[in-house]
Amino acid sequence: MSANYVVGTIGRRLRLGVVGGGPGSFIGSIHRGAALMNEQYEVIAAVLSSDAARSTAYAAALGIPRGYDSAREMIEAETAREDGIDVIAIMTPNNSHYEIARLALESGLHVICEKPLTNHYHEAISLAALVNQTGLQFCVAYGYAGYPMVRQAKAMVEAGDLGEIRMIQCNYVQGHLAEMAEDEKNGTNWHMLPEVAGENLIVADIGTHCYHLCSYVTGMQPEQLSADSCTMVPGRTATDYTSIQLRYANGARGSLWVTQAAAGAEHGLYLRVFGSKGGIEWHQEYPNELLFRSLDQPAQVFTKGGPGLYESAKHASAVPIGHPEGYREAFATLYRDFAEAVTDALTAQASPKDPLLFPQIEDGVQGVRFIEAAEESNRGNGFWVQVIPKYDYSMI
Amino acid sequence: MSANYVVGTIGRRLRLGVVGGGPGSFIGSIHRGAALMNEQYEVIAAVLSSDAARSTAYAAALGIPRGYDSAREMIEAETAREDGIDVIAIMTPNNSHYEIARLALESGLHVICEKPLTNHYHEAISLAALVNQTGLQFCVAYGYAGYPMVRQAKAMVEAGDLGEIRMIQCNYVQGHLAEMAEDEKNGTNWHMLPEVAGENLIVADIGTHCYHLCSYVTGMQPEQLSADSCTMVPGRTATDYTSIQLRYANGARGSLWVTQAAAGAEHGLYLRVFGSKGGIEWHQEYPNELLFRSLDQPAQVFTKGGPGLYESAKHASAVPIGHPEGYREAFATLYRDFAEAVTDALTAQASPKDPLLFPQIEDGVQGVRFIEAAEESNRGNGFWVQVIPKYDYSMI
Amino acid sequence: MSANYVVGTIGRRLRLGVVGGGPGSFIGSIHRGAALMNEQYEVIAAVLSSDAARSTAYAAALGIPRGYDSAREMIEAETAREDGIDVIAIMTPNNSHYEIARLALESGLHVICEKPLTNHYHEAISLAALVNQTGLQFCVAYGYAGYPMVRQAKAMVEAGDLGEIRMIQCNYVQGHLAEMAEDEKNGTNWHMLPEVAGENLIVADIGTHCYHLCSYVTGMQPEQLSADSCTMVPGRTATDYTSIQLRYANGARGSLWVTQAAAGAEHGLYLRVFGSKGGIEWHQEYPNELLFRSLDQPAQVFTKGGPGLYESAKHASAVPIGHPEGYREAFATLYRDFAEAVTDALTAQASPKDPLLFPQIEDGVQGVRFIEAAEESNRGNGFWVQVIPKYDYSMI
Amino acid sequence: MSANYVVGTIGRRLRLGVVGGGPGSFIGSIHRGAALMNEQYEVIAAVLSSDAARSTAYAAALGIPRGYDSAREMIEAETAREDGIDVIAIMTPNNSHYEIARLALESGLHVICEKPLTNHYHEAISLAALVNQTGLQFCVAYGYAGYPMVRQAKAMVEAGDLGEIRMIQCNYVQGHLAEMAEDEKNGTNWHMLPEVAGENLIVADIGTHCYHLCSYVTGMQPEQLSADSCTMVPGRTATDYTSIQLRYANGARGSLWVTQAAAGAEHGLYLRVFGSKGGIEWHQEYPNELLFRSLDQPAQVFTKGGPGLYESAKHASAVPIGHPEGYREAFATLYRDFAEAVTDALTAQASPKDPLLFPQIEDGVQGVRFIEAAEESNRGNGFWVQVIPKYDYSMI
Repeated sequence: MSANYVVGTIGRRLRLGVVGGGPGSFIGSIHRGAALMNEQYEVIAAVLSSDAARSTAYAAALGIPRGYDSAREMIEAETAREDGIDVIAIMTPNNSHYEIARLALESGLHVICEKPLTNHYHEAISLAALVNQTGLQFCVAYGYAGYPMVRQAKAMVEAGDLGEIRMIQCNYVQGHLAEMAEDEKNGTNWHMLPEVAGENLIVADIGTHCYHLCSYVTGMQPEQLSADSCTMVPGRTATDYTSIQLRYANGARGSLWVTQAAAGAEHGLYLRVFGSKGGIEWHQEYPNELLFRSLDQPAQVFTKGGPGLYESAKHASAVPIGHPEGYREAFATLYRDFAEAVTDALTAQASPKDPLLFPQIEDGVQGVRFIEAAEESNRGNGFWVQVIPKYDYSMI
Repeated sequence: MSANYVVGTIGRRLRLGVVGGGPGSFIGSIHRGAALMNEQYEVIAAVLSSDAARSTAYAAALGIPRGYDSAREMIEAETAREDGIDVIAIMTPNNSHYEIARLALESGLHVICEKPLTNHYHEAISLAALVNQTGLQFCVAYGYAGYPMVRQAKAMVEAGDLGEIRMIQCNYVQGHLAEMAEDEKNGTNWHMLPEVAGENLIVADIGTHCYHLCSYVTGMQPEQLSADSCTMVPGRTATDYTSIQLRYANGARGSLWVTQAAAGAEHGLYLRVFGSKGGIEWHQEYPNELLFRSLDQPAQVFTKGGPGLYESAKHASAVPIGHPEGYREAFATLYRDFAEAVTDALTAQASPKDPLLFPQIEDGVQGVRFIEAAEESNRGNGFWVQVIPKYDYSMI
Repeated sequence: MSANYVVGTIGRRLRLGVVGGGPGSFIGSIHRGAALMNEQYEVIAAVLSSDAARSTAYAAALGIPRGYDSAREMIEAETAREDGIDVIAIMTPNNSHYEIARLALESGLHVICEKPLTNHYHEAISLAALVNQTGLQFCVAYGYAGYPMVRQAKAMVEAGDLGEIRMIQCNYVQGHLAEMAEDEKNGTNWHMLPEVAGENLIVADIGTHCYHLCSYVTGMQPEQLSADSCTMVPGRTATDYTSIQLRYANGARGSLWVTQAAAGAEHGLYLRVFGSKGGIEWHQEYPNELLFRSLDQPAQVFTKGGPGLYESAKHASAVPIGHPEGYREAFATLYRDFAEAVTDALTAQASPKDPLLFPQIEDGVQGVRFIEAAEESNRGNGFWVQVIPKYDYSMI
Repeated sequence: MSANYVVGTIGRRLRLGVVGGGPGSFIGSIHRGAALMNEQYEVIAAVLSSDAARSTAYAAALGIPRGYDSAREMIEAETAREDGIDVIAIMTPNNSHYEIARLALESGLHVICEKPLTNHYHEAISLAALVNQTGLQFCVAYGYAGYPMVRQAKAMVEAGDLGEIRMIQCNYVQGHLAEMAEDEKNGTNWHMLPEVAGENLIVADIGTHCYHLCSYVTGMQPEQLSADSCTMVPGRTATDYTSIQLRYANGARGSLWVTQAAAGAEHGLYLRVFGSKGGIEWHQEYPNELLFRSLDQPAQVFTKGGPGLYESAKHASAVPIGHPEGYREAFATLYRDFAEAVTDALTAQASPKDPLLFPQIEDGVQGVRFIEAAEESNRGNGFWVQVIPKYDYSMI
């Protein structure tokens, strides 16, 4: 594949419209930069405020040609143009994902949507059905799935390098909410409002990342879970700590330890998977390395761009060995994968890579169910809750 | 205090007798070396086999003057001599600790005993009563409590550097039992026999270390626990995996992840404690560093022998900064602490340090209760079990 | 400053033309992506081959509007257009930098140029004079100067946190040339041809990065150097190893250890600076951390986005704490800094930040002199060579 | 070999006499503890002060049976006794090593001597001749040679795992002399007095360790060296910084960077060796790991006690995988190796291991020559000085 499969195939860059991520937003610049940095997209439309004038002004200030005041307006206007957007990226508050994604799919747009997919399982199922019916591409932005070493871990499990999977541990230990910030106290941080961000906030916000990382790497869905959530920070109403135990069909166990109230911690996303033959260990804060230990050999450190990697890990890296890649590159890899899938769709080609490596709609559905199951267990003082099996298209 | 408080005070080195740890035993050479390396003990008596001739021969081959064929014989003979032992160290299989320790205490010997203290709670309580009555010194050999950086962590919590404790995570992830070894298959490894090593083996063997480390550092006892134990390795009957959740009186949570079936893992003992002001992180495999993160300052790395340590951490180190100390030195520090306490007892002095820093009989008692509670919860599919509060002498 | 100072100030993104970096080139995608990812530039013109048809075809395949077949053609055509380029980025083989940069400056373009600035000192001086006369902005792409933690190191030295500087050590230990590759054997890799890439290749290629990093962080220029270069790999003619000792006016010493023949090594850029009060340590492969040790305090680990950073380090980071940034972000920061300076120039404003933090033309001049001095010393079996003092505009 | 080869072979522990290392001395407790901790020696005689009464009192306070007031007195008295010492360990100031070692050898004692062997080359040669004539065992206490991972590195080079050696880098960067201490100001710290500790102090004190580590691991002696030494700390007369470049017969290069004036640094001993096939990296502060990188495989991390080690590395470790060993254990391994060699000598057996792994008299001789050569080069402003080839017994 050429360095620019998209332009080479359709003769131009893909046209992206974004909803959410106004000036000052962290995730907005992440999405737009991820789209731009590999020269496969241009960002030509945006909804950056619910106020029409402000949205247009913001778009202009960012150098984005067309600003709109609502997702509906953007979708209608853009799909009516010859040179309208191919793809929509949704990074609005959680409780608005469903409506925007539904409208986009019904209008024939390919969709990149922030996690969690929706706040309710029935909404998630409904979107999955729509994706299934339309055949459009849909990516749930579990950004950590774009790291080369996460891809390597996934490939190693698939290849049997770890043997039968026995244990999974995933931690996500942040400290940025170890104290009440002003915007939490005055209720203006939507991430801390359960009616917007979802019940059991800590699971909806970052626990869902752990869930996805475990599933993405191991290819296994948990059968049962037991959760213990609570609130550590005085004065807070939202949950900020959870410990979740997982049981898998093959007898494997998983353990998640997730918080945003760990004073002084930074990001703290960390995965360990052990099987009958060996184990891997990955830290998001040192993303370019993957430690592999095995029964009879010295530990190996796989490095982004280094020797011994599987193809999927090589493909996910854009710069040579020794040049660190970070969070933005991982995110950009999701956009690159997605661009290739959309390009294939636009030209009616079969995908050159099977299976697709960016997180799919099913990942989003299962992520929503996981959040709900964790809340059920927590309310039941940790009783073991059945987590539904992998989403089945035939059910719809 | 001089470099050799013992000799300086009583005019000779302490006389130690050991029970267990015959040739080829790992823990035997650890205990004897720990006693010898700081020049405060001589090892003059030993029970190294239940066969009298072999025990004597083994003792001779190790250069130990007097070999006996049973603990009872050694205790009787040595306590009858003018130059008999002051201290007995017990490193026999778990189910024999109680009888030997009881006999030693009744004979007036100070005792160092391997963990777990006993296999049954009533035995542990009974030993605690005996220690209380006799006033003899008793150390439970939770060796990790001798590391300088564990002492620093404990001192930091006590000083309030972490604020109110919120979360504790302790992992102990080993791989040396990731496959069935020959001595497990043929039943000759007593560590794998529940009737010798205790039910819920993984908790009795290493989970109890996690328990102690958490309690030692934080000074807090858990109120409730929920455990999920299982056996990962095909063909094995003993448990080799457990995940234990802890709830503390102040609302804090703890999470233990413990296994010996993690293929490729080495030792894997790891502690994190977070409070309202900051958190610490310690890895036994890199024992000379302690990471401290706080809300408003860059992370700090405390180093054995380095600047900024509390007195107890300084005292636990025998060599200057930059010269690594390891497991044997940590163990030797328990022996050094114990030697000082015994010396004070022999000379009827008040202890120069209060409180004593080596693990006490109460730590052993609580460790036994912890093992039992974990097994109760596990049998109840993880229901929350009440862990008794800190052992109360007045109850006896 | 807004997230997009450029668009906010001049009402559009800056227009960039690139020379070099055709398909398959590593550095080409780095430059273009660095320009794009922070939404301050668009890449609208390119010279990607000396063959006119191929250059145009390549530009089209990358989605770049206008392809040219020579730098001269591009510069003439673009400067004649209303909507022509503001900035030119030069990433051609080393021996062509001078002519292209000169032409660009004479045509009124702001310039970003790869290192080494030129292959000869008199060329470098000449360019410096031209920059001085025209007042145009000029950035030498020493990309490591864009890392937030390098900025923090620089700021700490400036603030006196390390005291009087005593010692500097910089290593750059790569392994990708540990064996002769096919393109080296057949002479098609221009990086290995002294007539193109410069004499004493190892110094021209990566030793110059060490030189710049040391100078950038400490603000000091070496007075004397002694170099020992050689060729490690059999069959190679170019140098692939050098060790350079530095002496500074204040008595400080520097030591560089630089190679591309270290089999198995990755990138290996590493800096340590010690002063009378403390020292810092930075590894490019773990770029988001900076270790600071001091006389009386525990070591501190500064983290990108974390507490305790100086403003310049904060400003150089685009994503929050715990989200790693890598080589591309560092490079993008140079482009961001440069965009701000160019924007100020275009609007005749004084620069909002003084001094400018991207590497200046003087850095390029001194880097060229450093390469020459190292070669002089090496030919003299390591005799101490005088390195000229900081470039003095008044000399021109 | 049994756990206690010594006692098993000669029916008792070896008897050790120590000269130097009085109360308060760091190195005294290291040597005595190293001898004791593996149960192969008893320390029965000591010279701990040049004052007879104090020496005896100190010995008693440490629990050592016999105190003497001079090495001569101890050697004469002990060699006259049936139960006198077998081995003498010398840890006095550098300028006294020669006389004591000579006397000991002439009296038939096996010798362990601190580094540097002597302050003058002719003395070192003379001792080597004496060792050669008497056939007595002689160990120069380069303690780092006892670390299991140093042994592994040596074995890997010997086995050709690194290919042809190209580059060696050794750093020893300490900070404990970054300021003038009181005992340096008032002249009571003999380590800072050139007439006692040797000219070019920084090389005599720790540079010699670098020299030995490089030679021990690679089996190569440098042909030429160039040195640049200086004094960093104001007010100091002794050198506290040196950078030494090495050239080897096969074209390999070495680079040493050595200081005790790096404010905030701890120990900082660090070795890298690269060959045509791969390279190793070892940090004394994390001594239980050895990183191995190679051309075509992921990096490997060898661990003390872990899989894939050579026999000599396995033999040098006394505790199982995951239980860290430190500086004292490394030192104790030299004593263990030496005990085996002395036991063989006492029983007229051929050594069970050939070659001997503890540092030999030749290592001491070459170490002394290295110190002198470094001083010659430094005085000549870094001219390249010929270092003599490996010491040749036939020259004597």
